[in-house]
Amino acid sequence: MADPWQNEYDFAVQVARVAGAVIRNAGEDETKVQTKSCAVDLVTQTDERVEKIIIGSLKEQFGNGTHCFIGEESVAKGEPCILTDKPTWIIDPVDGTTNFVHGFPFVAVSIAFAVNKELEFGVVYSCLEDKMYKARKGKGAFCNDEPIKVSDVNDINKSIIISEHGTDRSIEKVTKIFSTMQKILCIPVHGLRGSGTAATNMCLVASGASEAFFEIGIHCWDIAAGAVIVKEAGGLLLDVDGGPFDLMSRRMVSANNKVIADRIIKEIEIFQVVRDDAPIQKK
Amino acid sequence: MADPWQNEYDFAVQVARVAGAVIRNAGEDETKVQTKSCAVDLVTQTDERVEKIIIGSLKEQFGNGTHCFIGEESVAKGEPCILTDKPTWIIDPVDGTTNFVHGFPFVAVSIAFAVNKELEFGVVYSCLEDKMYKARKGKGAFCNDEPIKVSDVNDINKSIIISEHGTDRSIEKVTKIFSTMQKILCIPVHGLRGSGTAATNMCLVASGASEAFFEIGIHCWDIAAGAVIVKEAGGLLLDVDGGPFDLMSRRMVSANNKVIADRIIKEIEIFQVVRDDAPIQKK
Repeated sequence: MADPWQNEYDFAVQVARVAGAVIRNAGEDETKVQTKSCAVDLVTQTDERVEKIIIGSLKEQFGNGTHCFIGEESVAKGEPCILTDKPTWIIDPVDGTTNFVHGFPFVAVSIAFAVNKELEFGVVYSCLEDKMYKARKGKGAFCNDEPIKVSDVNDINKSIIISEHGTDRSIEKVTKIFSTMQKILCIPVHGLRGSGTAATNMCLVASGASEAFFEIGIHCWDIAAGAVIVKEAGGLLLDVDGGPFDLMSRRMVSANNKVIADRIIKEIEIFQVVRDDAPIQKK
Repeated sequence: MADPWQNEYDFAVQVARVAGAVIRNAGEDETKVQTKSCAVDLVTQTDERVEKIIIGSLKEQFGNGTHCFIGEESVAKGEPCILTDKPTWIIDPVDGTTNFVHGFPFVAVSIAFAVNKELEFGVVYSCLEDKMYKARKGKGAFCNDEPIKVSDVNDINKSIIISEHGTDRSIEKVTKIFSTMQKILCIPVHGLRGSGTAATNMCLVASGASEAFFEIGIHCWDIAAGAVIVKEAGGLLLDVDGGPFDLMSRRMVSANNKVIADRIIKEIEIFQVVRDDAPIQKK
């Protein structure tokens, strides 16, 4: 049977590449930085412009009104962030806006597609590295058309673990984040890393460069595409308490295998975050 | 007047490129990982092989016996680590061995050259990114032959700061490292990063992607080349207590300017490390 979403998948890759080129070209001139939830949660004109390009292109191509869109900047402007059974695009136009503003070399375009609340495919274009990661459910994961797979390391002492500090600087959250990181470092592991973009972090797990990436506070648009890529590369996704992964919960562990995931989960100090699909959008 | 070290500088760039190619090609087959000072201080056959290639090439080219060599793997095997007035090459064949072992995308070859204890030039080849950073004293810094300069950010709240956790997992050191990082994050700054290689971290400062990189515990071979590159890109180097930078002290702050450096130095919790040139090599 033909893949019902092949056109969408192919088009998503094309759109991600165009969006990445816009980001690369914008880099030099990007001076107007604004803040969102707090002083270190940044947004630029490029974020908004690229999201318009992506959503505009998708609407033009698949413009029968049946597709829904969840985009980081649209949600920031008050659009709903609810995943229904309808075909839904989940988009982060510029994942790693802080990196983008500074010219730090990890900036990604993230485009995912879900139907009946299930992720069908994901595309992450790490545009400064020119690495196009993609995965279609059941069909494997790729970087620049080469198959990728997760690391086969089972020994936590031989792992590299990724996490991020996020943009929330409240004492309780920051203290828990650092305490968790310190405990994991001292298991010990080979090292802790963080690229500054969740989408790229997930691709680093998918391609075997890191055994696991976990974070509390990420949004669905940061991780939806990466989630498909990690799974199709042979990895798994869990909640930070070890339960099932929930895309809208803003909590995630992605790992190469369950041994590594479980060991990390033991150390994670959980703090509360408001779900992406909470009725009142106070995040 | 002709540059007395032009030949050495040009040759260092060539050797770094060759070494980087060896590292890239070795990546797939690198399975024999050994440990040095502790369970997470890794060394591979490639580290040793690349150092032999670099030092062998330099000795062959400048083989009049007047040049000295300080190389990470030679020192690990008991060679002296003393900087004299003689022309001295300071070499890290694979900076970021942990990244190399995992395929994490930052691995650098670092080659510096000092005369009369003063650094004359530095070459850092970030070989997985294919970025060749170089700087000759008084002649500017370059990445792939394009001039680079440090960020002009003066506002610590708009900075990205880089540091690393190192390989020492002793409680006192790790606690101070995390405490320092947490205080800096909460100044607040835009973000904390770490590539997993000191040489690349310094090049990220030199090229303006980060405002500062500091670390206690690095070695002279990790930072000698980067030190020239940061200075020639318009940045500065200090000790972690704000005093003058000392290449052999294993303590360093590299920054785009003094405002940023001073603000970070306020937060650094210093711990003791044995100097690289200590009489008894117990590190």
